Amino acid sequence: MKARVVVTLRNGILDPQGKAIEGALKALHVNGIKSVRQGKIFDVELDAADHGAAEAVLREACEKLLANQVVEDYQVEIP
Amino acid sequence: MKARVVVTLRNGILDPQGKAIEGALKALHVNGIKSVRQGKIFDVELDAADHGAAEAVLREACEKLLANQVVEDYQVEIP
Repeated sequence: MKARVVVTLRNGILDPQGKAIEGALKALHVNGIKSVRQGKIFDVELDAADHGAAEAVLREACEKLLANQVVEDYQVEIP
Repeated sequence: MKARVVVTLRNGILDPQGKAIEGALKALHVNGIKSVRQGKIFDVELDAADHGAAEAVLREACEKLLANQVVEDYQVEIP
């Protein structure tokens, strides 16, 4: 089973990397970009009996390792 | 307008960071994970007249800065 985990910074948490990308795009004359916030994705292949079991494993992975819940949110996407 | 750009390693390109995450999950007793590949997302807010114009700006941003097309693929998602 394939799934995708998306980890993004919580609203209100500063994202200096995103700000740097905004500045770089402006310097490269890419116009119309108002803001950029960077996040991470994890494309995971896993063995699970069903959708619910897969989601439980992925939530455990996020809580133990993939996301720092003090400053990050995560979403689990199972197609 | 809001959009999301997803940048992932091309198939066949080694992902040592993903392998390290696989190992760490195993060490943390998160079972059932077969493989992990890491990628990046960029949540972008932009000014664009329509869907097509937004896609053009985002493709330009990817080609000039966000994705290294030698080893990475990108997808532009505009809701």
